[in-house]
Amino acid sequence: METIIVIKIGGNIIDDKNALAEFLSDFAAIKAPKMLIHGGGKLATQLSKELNIEPQLIDGRRITDEKTIDIVTMVYAGLINKKIVAQLQANDTNAIGLTGADANIIEAHKRIHPSIDFGFVGDIDSVNADFLLELISKNKTPIIAPITHDKKGNLLNTNADTMAAAIAVELSKVKKVSFFYCFEKDGLLKDVNNNESIISKLTIAEIEQLKEKQIINAGMLPKTANIIHALENGVEKVILCHAKNVRSIVNENAKFGTTFTKN
Amino acid sequence: METIIVIKIGGNIIDDKNALAEFLSDFAAIKAPKMLIHGGGKLATQLSKELNIEPQLIDGRRITDEKTIDIVTMVYAGLINKKIVAQLQANDTNAIGLTGADANIIEAHKRIHPSIDFGFVGDIDSVNADFLLELISKNKTPIIAPITHDKKGNLLNTNADTMAAAIAVELSKVKKVSFFYCFEKDGLLKDVNNNESIISKLTIAEIEQLKEKQIINAGMLPKTANIIHALENGVEKVILCHAKNVRSIVNENAKFGTTFTKN
Repeated sequence: METIIVIKIGGNIIDDKNALAEFLSDFAAIKAPKMLIHGGGKLATQLSKELNIEPQLIDGRRITDEKTIDIVTMVYAGLINKKIVAQLQANDTNAIGLTGADANIIEAHKRIHPSIDFGFVGDIDSVNADFLLELISKNKTPIIAPITHDKKGNLLNTNADTMAAAIAVELSKVKKVSFFYCFEKDGLLKDVNNNESIISKLTIAEIEQLKEKQIINAGMLPKTANIIHALENGVEKVILCHAKNVRSIVNENAKFGTTFTKN
Repeated sequence: METIIVIKIGGNIIDDKNALAEFLSDFAAIKAPKMLIHGGGKLATQLSKELNIEPQLIDGRRITDEKTIDIVTMVYAGLINKKIVAQLQANDTNAIGLTGADANIIEAHKRIHPSIDFGFVGDIDSVNADFLLELISKNKTPIIAPITHDKKGNLLNTNADTMAAAIAVELSKVKKVSFFYCFEKDGLLKDVNNNESIISKLTIAEIEQLKEKQIINAGMLPKTANIIHALENGVEKVILCHAKNVRSIVNENAKFGTTFTKN
């Protein structure tokens, strides 16, 4: 059974035209069946500013109001998603851009919170792995934007890291999955100021130890929560690495980044 | 062999929230296999204005510069396409939104013109009917935005009427196709000031006669060119009608609009 490669890229790559082009050329060269989940980057915030749409905050938490869901739908599902698809097509990868609403691949509900109405923010209920696998079996490469829907007609802004983990988990029920979190560093660092101090391997138990020692802290906590969730729910391994290393890790089994396994 | 229903809706419906919702509910109720091609409406122009992007004109012809292709990609492929998809999902239609770049369904090239560089405007080279038919056979409903690509990484602004005709033609090579052009009138009128004067049936020869008599004129000429192109290339019939009548024409064989056939 061939392993499916699920890759999440974040805003730092999306905001840098050259880095994105380089990554997409690498991604196209990955031989295994694959899919990409992309974040949003700074473009949506920039567009909101240009349109004089003020960010809505309640108790310091960001709200996705009606104007904002329109903006993120335009930027994530329109501009970013379709530019990635067109660039991959130019690289002979038969990419197909999707949101959670398309073919109902990801159903979600508006976030439920005791005191804050987050607006059009989605928490995921279900992932339709069948359709994604069908696309992959026909040599199509899904490119997924961080927008879901509630099956009531509303589009919902959804965290791309969480979405990627949910997709990896669902696929892992029928296929082997290697799940890549690409970020701006070379891996998880023992010493945040020393880019050479990469931890090459970690189990869930070891993650917990590093959290206690606060080597894993603030910014990394949501990501490690997603990583643990993925590993506990069937994903074989999660690799946290720089986008520039994904291709050689997959194609040449090169050793870069931090590899997380359950045990 | 079941007839495939290909429907093009224009800006007049897209710009009217209630009319769009009503149409989508009707569209969802169509029992035959179907797909929808949508135009852009006024939203892109409006957004350009809000962003102080001046329309670029050369010799009075509109140019799609880099900023404008970004805007139309956001609005057509992002906002409009995904809102339609989400609303259809709420109506239990398993819609999937696509541009020509997605799964390479429509390849185009930048318009070639002896004196004007139209910028990112696409003229269609090929339609991948196989993938569209595959989706339909799996009970998915393609919703197509008027954006194509050139396989060199560029997204291209493409006329939705022409795109719809090209899709209908390509599908008609393997399936029977009924092709609906929805617009703001009830059909082709003998007297433009009398909405009761609908011509119910027309052949290509009769279209030519009406063109000579200038009953078909200015605004209708590009549409009739697309209609003739479709009929001459395998589409069984083209129906020009108001969006509100599509459902009863298809489901109940009701007589509305103008039906065009080859002979």
